[in-house]
Amino acid sequence: MALRSFVEVHPDSHFPIQNLPYGVFKPGPGSSPRPGVAIGDYVLDLSELASAGLFDGPLLSNSDCFLQPNLNKFVSLGRPAWKEARATLQKLLSANEPTLRDNTALKQKCLVPMNRVELLLPVAIGDYTDFFSSLHHTRNCGILFRGPQNPVLENWFRLPVAYHGRASSIVISGTDIVRPRGQGPPAGSSTPYFGSSLKLDFELEMASVVGPGNELGKPVDINEAADHIFGLVLMNDWSARDIQAWEYVPLGPFLGKNFGTTISPWIVTLEALEPFATDAPKQDPPPLPYLAEKASKNYDVSLEVRIKPAEQNNLSLVTRSNLKHLYWTLTQQLAHHTVNGCNLRPGDLLGTGTISGPEPDSLGCLLELTMNGQKELSLNGATRKFLEDGDEVIFTGCCQGNGYKVGFGTCSGKVVPSPP
Amino acid sequence: MALRSFVEVHPDSHFPIQNLPYGVFKPGPGSSPRPGVAIGDYVLDLSELASAGLFDGPLLSNSDCFLQPNLNKFVSLGRPAWKEARATLQKLLSANEPTLRDNTALKQKCLVPMNRVELLLPVAIGDYTDFFSSLHHTRNCGILFRGPQNPVLENWFRLPVAYHGRASSIVISGTDIVRPRGQGPPAGSSTPYFGSSLKLDFELEMASVVGPGNELGKPVDINEAADHIFGLVLMNDWSARDIQAWEYVPLGPFLGKNFGTTISPWIVTLEALEPFATDAPKQDPPPLPYLAEKASKNYDVSLEVRIKPAEQNNLSLVTRSNLKHLYWTLTQQLAHHTVNGCNLRPGDLLGTGTISGPEPDSLGCLLELTMNGQKELSLNGATRKFLEDGDEVIFTGCCQGNGYKVGFGTCSGKVVPSPP
Ligand SMILES: [Ca+2]
Ligand SMILES: [Ca+2]
Ligand SMILES: [Mg+2]
Ligand SMILES: [Mg+2]
Ligand code: NI
Repeated sequence: MALRSFVEVHPDSHFPIQNLPYGVFKPGPGSSPRPGVAIGDYVLDLSELASAGLFDGPLLSNSDCFLQPNLNKFVSLGRPAWKEARATLQKLLSANEPTLRDNTALKQKCLVPMNRVELLLPVAIGDYTDFFSSLHHTRNCGILFRGPQNPVLENWFRLPVAYHGRASSIVISGTDIVRPRGQGPPAGSSTPYFGSSLKLDFELEMASVVGPGNELGKPVDINEAADHIFGLVLMNDWSARDIQAWEYVPLGPFLGKNFGTTISPWIVTLEALEPFATDAPKQDPPPLPYLAEKASKNYDVSLEVRIKPAEQNNLSLVTRSNLKHLYWTLTQQLAHHTVNGCNLRPGDLLGTGTISGPEPDSLGCLLELTMNGQKELSLNGATRKFLEDGDEVIFTGCCQGNGYKVGFGTCSGKVVPSPP
Repeated sequence: MALRSFVEVHPDSHFPIQNLPYGVFKPGPGSSPRPGVAIGDYVLDLSELASAGLFDGPLLSNSDCFLQPNLNKFVSLGRPAWKEARATLQKLLSANEPTLRDNTALKQKCLVPMNRVELLLPVAIGDYTDFFSSLHHTRNCGILFRGPQNPVLENWFRLPVAYHGRASSIVISGTDIVRPRGQGPPAGSSTPYFGSSLKLDFELEMASVVGPGNELGKPVDINEAADHIFGLVLMNDWSARDIQAWEYVPLGPFLGKNFGTTISPWIVTLEALEPFATDAPKQDPPPLPYLAEKASKNYDVSLEVRIKPAEQNNLSLVTRSNLKHLYWTLTQQLAHHTVNGCNLRPGDLLGTGTISGPEPDSLGCLLELTMNGQKELSLNGATRKFLEDGDEVIFTGCCQGNGYKVGFGTCSGKVVPSPP
């Protein structure tokens, strides 16, 4: 029989006892940020559990990692501590275990209804990197920008292409996104366009949260890379296509991306995702030795994008994709990032790049869905080429287990007008 | 008569009472990091001054900004507080003022010989951006990579091109730089090169340290941008040209840059640089309104690069350049960075890009000096196309006043071999 919690969890909840994703929350308006774990419709307050001495394993019993305002210290401790915390929490929450179940006062303190809390960024993000690891997305973008002959550049099959993004503008799900102003390509005139972006887009991504990380000058071996990934979140890499198109040569995306990046509040651990591991696509040409891993795996995470257009009250499904479509794995991304000695720090974020699948309805951004505005997307009567002010974009991600789900909740944001 | 300190300062010192640059240091091996100001051959301990109640102005008398392990809190306070601190320090250090001059015990505590201290990164850097603002450098790179017809792309004259760099690998002057390993272009074969970089280079840059910064979604007006720049440092953006050449399309530089970036320890304030302001070059086409500033200025900072080759004990001067050569000003860089609503935080670093001048001996990197390794650079008998293990690169920067200098000290680093 499957593991079950004394906390009632709906069968379609993203947060059963098999998941236990980590976040940071405030239980009420005046209270301080603290780590928590999602269980059904509740948040389990890890600072209260720690203060009550319930993390009694050898690695965590004397640690203050759950008395911090973010998860950076906990994720820095590495896999043995993560496993110990998970074992402790699964035991404390299980239906057979009386410690918490039968202690009404403690339960009252520790289990906070999720609809009453404020969720915050789970980690302080020192550096944020965005990869470009979906072959479908890469090919589609190449065709749109450079034409159908040779849409994927030669280097792409040899290394996980990436660029540095902006850490300061990463925001938590639910934060409004201000439409960026900026320059766009000169259209017919010699002077560039200037004004509010006319081509605001989303990008469906997931991101790894880095664990212990490495010292400057000391690369992480590909077969140890998984030990440096604490878990995953959903990520919307909002993109202004007109700004991006004009600015990106020769140094890459900048203001077309750095006005806002939204992540989901709950970090789902690799431990919780392990039952959903799948073989990664075969790579041809074979990866260079520093990227060749003993077992190359992705995770079967169903991803959906919905848009709630400004003029409607209902959501329209626009994309179904899956993390398993990634060509370059999360571990290859991390090993590549450090091969030159670059240091990763606990809490760093590594975005996968837009996750498009092979089907027309599995494309991860409007650029692909509307062929850069050449055709319209229909949303229950409304139509869009790009996002309008007031539109809300909602991502969900979920793994289907045997009788339970391991989910990511949602990652959402609403577009609001540029400042005057 | 010029302002003079009771601390003896050699006429060729970079750190007279007219300068007073800020840094962070440890007075001894066991002690904690604290803010300081350079004066002659001494560091003035600001934490001791603050504890003694000597910051007695209205803005700083009750502040703990000098009791922090970095300068982030101080730089966040903005120009009025910076001016008050400078006035207090110039008064306390002046030859006529007895408060510190005649207090032997306090002097003993506050003035630490610079050769005894350890200098640390002056700020915790949340995000680091690198611009590309020298027309000479841009044109030279364009000719090398795309040929002499149209070497500068159309967007370059319209906006200060930039990309996000890596904050984690920014190190303080004197830190060894480990030669990066990585992929390079396939040479004659179909398989990329893999190994230690064969084209390791320096880039002569300076960088702005951001002051108060702005909220996400709220751009900084071009004519207020100067109030968001606390001061400048020297910066060496070490670059592996083979890694960069292979990886950079289409998303820009990544592993070719993020293995190490060195900054000088002393932040020279805009107040100290003000006597050395010069008119910035006329811009044609004229900048769009959001980049058009009432007064467009650069600073006359003489920059020199020396290399100490591994096999020699002496330094060879390889470049003389000047910050005044920048096409896009520091304030235009900052305003452009925020025009889309991107938020800057106190302590963020904005690199200028390689600062090349118009002359053959004013080129800011080996890529330009050796035409990407097509010719050799002569160093007192040694020759170089790119950097060898054991080579040390030393930048200096200095403004020449009337009888005094306002200088940046040095920004240096030695190349050490890749890990096996
Ligand atoms: Ca992206
Ligand atoms: Ca540079
Ligand atoms: Mg973004
Ligand atoms: Mg660098
Ligand atoms: Ni010039």
